[in-house]
Amino acid sequence: MVKKNITLALDAMGGDDAPSVVIEGASLSLQKYPDLRFLIFGDEHKIAPFFKEYPDVKEASTLIHTKDVVSNEDKPSFVIRNSRQSSMWLAIEAVAKGQADGVVSAGNTGALMAVARLLLKMTPGISRPAIATVFPTAKGPKVVLDLGANVACDADMLIQFAIMGNVYAKNIGYKKPTVGLLNVGEEELKGNSMLHEVRDFLKDVDPDTLNFQGFVEGDDIMKGRTDVVVTDGFTGNALLKASEGIANYIFDLLRNVFRTSWLTRMAYLFLRRQLKLQVKDHLDPRVHNGAILIGLGGVAIKSHGSADGFAFSNAISAAEEMVEQNLNQQIKDDLQKILHPTIQEDK
Amino acid sequence: MVKKNITLALDAMGGDDAPSVVIEGASLSLQKYPDLRFLIFGDEHKIAPFFKEYPDVKEASTLIHTKDVVSNEDKPSFVIRNSRQSSMWLAIEAVAKGQADGVVSAGNTGALMAVARLLLKMTPGISRPAIATVFPTAKGPKVVLDLGANVACDADMLIQFAIMGNVYAKNIGYKKPTVGLLNVGEEELKGNSMLHEVRDFLKDVDPDTLNFQGFVEGDDIMKGRTDVVVTDGFTGNALLKASEGIANYIFDLLRNVFRTSWLTRMAYLFLRRQLKLQVKDHLDPRVHNGAILIGLGGVAIKSHGSADGFAFSNAISAAEEMVEQNLNQQIKDDLQKILHPTIQEDK
Repeated sequence: MVKKNITLALDAMGGDDAPSVVIEGASLSLQKYPDLRFLIFGDEHKIAPFFKEYPDVKEASTLIHTKDVVSNEDKPSFVIRNSRQSSMWLAIEAVAKGQADGVVSAGNTGALMAVARLLLKMTPGISRPAIATVFPTAKGPKVVLDLGANVACDADMLIQFAIMGNVYAKNIGYKKPTVGLLNVGEEELKGNSMLHEVRDFLKDVDPDTLNFQGFVEGDDIMKGRTDVVVTDGFTGNALLKASEGIANYIFDLLRNVFRTSWLTRMAYLFLRRQLKLQVKDHLDPRVHNGAILIGLGGVAIKSHGSADGFAFSNAISAAEEMVEQNLNQQIKDDLQKILHPTIQEDK
Repeated sequence: MVKKNITLALDAMGGDDAPSVVIEGASLSLQKYPDLRFLIFGDEHKIAPFFKEYPDVKEASTLIHTKDVVSNEDKPSFVIRNSRQSSMWLAIEAVAKGQADGVVSAGNTGALMAVARLLLKMTPGISRPAIATVFPTAKGPKVVLDLGANVACDADMLIQFAIMGNVYAKNIGYKKPTVGLLNVGEEELKGNSMLHEVRDFLKDVDPDTLNFQGFVEGDDIMKGRTDVVVTDGFTGNALLKASEGIANYIFDLLRNVFRTSWLTRMAYLFLRRQLKLQVKDHLDPRVHNGAILIGLGGVAIKSHGSADGFAFSNAISAAEEMVEQNLNQQIKDDLQKILHPTIQEDK
């Protein structure tokens, strides 16, 4: 239920199948949130046929015609200099100007992050934004960040990521999320003084505010050992992509198994429904589509570039929920509590 | 085929099921390499029943009784100070003294690495050892390193890892391996000046010596895009464990699917053989058991701690092959060619 009228800016030209999936996704979102309104930025000629197909979206939207498009090959610095009339730039600018409450784009991640940082600034007290998303694990969806916004992180950044990830986990339904810090093993050889500094800080935080569980390892993510896993953007991005890689590879191997003979083809028919329910739907990245650019002064959601309409509507939902729950205010409150507590206990 | 008599030192007390898997593994290895000889370090009372069970191993071995054991909880610094009479220490020392050609242990990785560095020293020209292993990918087994020996790596170390990984890939059968450097995306935001420095160096190396393909991403590993993937030990360890985590999770989901009803149970019976052949055996970590501590002055192989006899015998095979192929000499030769070429072209 939308309590107030929320308006989202949509970059209709980002992603592999723009603008069709954007308009289709908006239509699906209107079924869930009928009061949602859109500012749609994109090429009116390309959007027109989809407005015909989805009159509900046309009804709920203001279309702002843009000619310029940010491509996946454009470097952020190029975009900042040359793409100020692009659908992506103008959609983000609508949030900066207060015309929209949040922005959703399936476009170039690096450009989106750079322009969003420039126009939306940071949540006060946060030094760098992070990319956060949800992994479907053995114990439900779990938050992992940073997934690639920052290749090099210092202790302060990781502490801020922990605070932001904790708030995000609360917003997806965990009352008192557990938070873990990714490390690579118990052996002292494998230690890292910066990670120990982060751990030493977080373990002293009031667990009612942030329930820190210490170090976790790569295999703990899918075990769902903690509700939030914090890591730097290089490691997070590499392990996210490696995980996608192995999952896709296993599914390829299974497809080959099913294709081996008429017997295995028949077995597949017996399994198809349960495979879809228990494996495919469960791991479906489209369900959890929408990486959050967390730590910015406004709500910005990155949809996967290959999103379909269903996936894009889930990215819109993520934006709607961040706006409604006022995630940024919660982050500010927790920063205050954790980094600048008014009553500090003696140690 | 063993050309000369190779002697391997086995730490019989390392790993979850020591010493049984060590002796069973040695027996399996003797079937493959009948001329192999062992120095077995461990508790003679615990080993005796397994010598009875595997007289071939008793025949091929000299047993050196040790009382002290390195546990998985022991920190490397503790082991270096206090465990000089342990099976692990003495097995490594046998290589340092020239009594054995290589050492295999399923014990504590951090301790093994620290003691091996101390006693075996480094391959001249290599500043830090790396942990290298083989991933079973869509295009055959591929080499990934470092998997956890070094949490922080500089450009020189990554260049050395590339040289070592290249030699290792040749030794597992690639005539002219392709080498990739792990990065996190094309966007300039995600760049990392140190990785660019490594890339700029490697792309100028004669491709007949090291065939460098530039940056790869996490999902390229399982696609088998290059024969070698080079990364730092923190990222490598995290993505290895995350990959194991997602693979195990998918297999758990599949097991649940098969258990849903009598129909799915029947389907499983139809699939069982092909699932084993095309998925289980193919991804079986036991087949590729044996992480190489590469860059040391002697051959040292780390078996997975939960290895069974079959897995441990594959770790022994890896040691045998490294000794036979004189991997360390090849690394020295390539270091010379790449870092100190006698004829240097003008740029």
